[in-house]
Amino acid sequence: MSPTKKTKTKSKVKTKTTKPAVKKTIKAGSGGDKLSELRQDLVTGDWVVIANSRGKRPDDFKVNAEINENSSQENCLFCDPEASGQEKDVLIYNTQDGDWSLRVFPNKFPAFSRPTGKLQHNEEGPYFWMDGIGYHEVIVTKDHFERIGSMDKLKVAEIFDAFQTRYLDLMNKKSIRYVEIFHNQGKEAGASIFHPHSQLAAIPVISPYINLELSGADRYYKSNKKCVFCDMIEWEKEEGHRVIFENERFIAFCPFASRRAFEVWVMPKDHQPYFERMETEDKIDVGEAMNEAIRKINKVLGDPALNFYLHTSPCDGKDYPHYHWHIEILPKTSTWAGFELSTGIEISAIEPENAAKALREA
Amino acid sequence: MSPTKKTKTKSKVKTKTTKPAVKKTIKAGSGGDKLSELRQDLVTGDWVVIANSRGKRPDDFKVNAEINENSSQENCLFCDPEASGQEKDVLIYNTQDGDWSLRVFPNKFPAFSRPTGKLQHNEEGPYFWMDGIGYHEVIVTKDHFERIGSMDKLKVAEIFDAFQTRYLDLMNKKSIRYVEIFHNQGKEAGASIFHPHSQLAAIPVISPYINLELSGADRYYKSNKKCVFCDMIEWEKEEGHRVIFENERFIAFCPFASRRAFEVWVMPKDHQPYFERMETEDKIDVGEAMNEAIRKINKVLGDPALNFYLHTSPCDGKDYPHYHWHIEILPKTSTWAGFELSTGIEISAIEPENAAKALREA
Repeated sequence: MSPTKKTKTKSKVKTKTTKPAVKKTIKAGSGGDKLSELRQDLVTGDWVVIANSRGKRPDDFKVNAEINENSSQENCLFCDPEASGQEKDVLIYNTQDGDWSLRVFPNKFPAFSRPTGKLQHNEEGPYFWMDGIGYHEVIVTKDHFERIGSMDKLKVAEIFDAFQTRYLDLMNKKSIRYVEIFHNQGKEAGASIFHPHSQLAAIPVISPYINLELSGADRYYKSNKKCVFCDMIEWEKEEGHRVIFENERFIAFCPFASRRAFEVWVMPKDHQPYFERMETEDKIDVGEAMNEAIRKINKVLGDPALNFYLHTSPCDGKDYPHYHWHIEILPKTSTWAGFELSTGIEISAIEPENAAKALREA
Repeated sequence: MSPTKKTKTKSKVKTKTTKPAVKKTIKAGSGGDKLSELRQDLVTGDWVVIANSRGKRPDDFKVNAEINENSSQENCLFCDPEASGQEKDVLIYNTQDGDWSLRVFPNKFPAFSRPTGKLQHNEEGPYFWMDGIGYHEVIVTKDHFERIGSMDKLKVAEIFDAFQTRYLDLMNKKSIRYVEIFHNQGKEAGASIFHPHSQLAAIPVISPYINLELSGADRYYKSNKKCVFCDMIEWEKEEGHRVIFENERFIAFCPFASRRAFEVWVMPKDHQPYFERMETEDKIDVGEAMNEAIRKINKVLGDPALNFYLHTSPCDGKDYPHYHWHIEILPKTSTWAGFELSTGIEISAIEPENAAKALREA
């Protein structure tokens, strides 16, 4: 690895005030400035983002509206980010011969608007909403065709080094409570650009899914005096039939309650609540585990569209000693239909044990 | 309407025992009988279904594996259900001239296995799972091409009459705590058969999404002494800019915190916790509102794939006086990508106020 970093970011950790400074009665959607909005569901308390800043009109949603996908290198927006008018890099890694190998820059069509002042919390009748502020960045590797499943493991480690570097910068920005790190591969998985890239979104709320995991881990710890993820790893290692790969520091397995067919989780074997504190050896081992897991998925499923994302403790200034960071990889093996949308219960048509067997042997 | 019902179902309401009778230590996925399994996520407590009974092999998940879709009438499995080997109807409505207009029969590839004995609750190491028992039925209307958005409103009312009739039967089956009613239109929305059909799934658990709504509604009532859905309707009627259709008993509007672009909710205007208690006039009015809402969506978005589902109080023998049944219609205007999968926060690229304006005028 040993990338040359042009931009070196600092890592200060401080306690933040998360409470709103301002609360106004203002009709949502009335602003002419097209900032993103975070609107709260009045019944469930969950959030949605209305990404006004993307500036779509009703016609843009029509069936067969043009899709911006470009598997050819010609006119690729990420092969030469400067030439294609991307914003200035916030981080760049260079190779020995002076070319770039990885760069990070702001997303040109951000789901979150960069903060311009105090975070506004607003009401409209019985409803609540706030400015959808945050930071939305893209992490691009040089090669137009080389995906994580076919990279050298040290290149994958470099991506994780970039995740960590940007995380350490973004986690300390004002009003930011969580930094989402995710990757979309393939159109069916929501990737609008073919060139391999990951994304970071630093946001002012802790998401419903993270809240669920945090409270579940806390509940489990209170009952069992152990980390739920550590217990899971111990059982999976003992059983073995859902494990697909393991190295010194990381394990990859199909989770017992897989939501998707061929879902894989990649976890540090030691108890680590905070992703951002990972060491060099962790990055090399997670790089290898991710490369292996995705290579296996590609082989068994024939290079499917897939998503992965990283779940770690929030950066809201609180401690989360019972959480355990990890990555969830979801190949696009199914479509959410009415049942899943209604219930939140996913239907997987293969046992994770059988999926793991196929992946282990790949 | 006034359909001739061959099968008349009874409507007894009783209090059920929902606690497991049997709990065993047994490895999930080990059975040779291929029953569906409900597995619990150890961290979040959420459920997933492993639908073994569908009998898929790893190869069936490969990219470009054959998709069972048939928009032509030839060999349609639902045009003549008897000839195509479907199971016997549990409900059939006939027209004046003796032909059938709607029929309900068990799903040939059920996500839930019909119960054969006591509901088994099992453990595997730290994990829990139970038999994925339940009833999974298909509601088919006669015409191969006529979708809800282009039907006569009385035909849509007939579909709701069938929902109610089957609901009243299934809600009283042993171990059933919820009856899901949903509809998938178009391949991108998960429909595997072109011929228009809805589905019912009577299941032994209350889903995470319903639990969230029930607890949210309860919390709101405790703070405000009012039903949250009634308050929402009152505000939407007063504001008007998210309403797309209204008749005497029902209202259709784009929700304030729309998850999907062009999402529409259809709700009884009076406070009604229990869908199954709806009256004839309700069925006619919901039929009209659903027809209008989907017709408008089709017109603005060019006949998109879509899902809708019905949320009502559970049938677990408890009372839910503060809940308010309704239907949520989700056109397939986006794909869940890494951010949404990681967070549960959806990103919608148009304000519901703008979507509603386009729908209202359609």
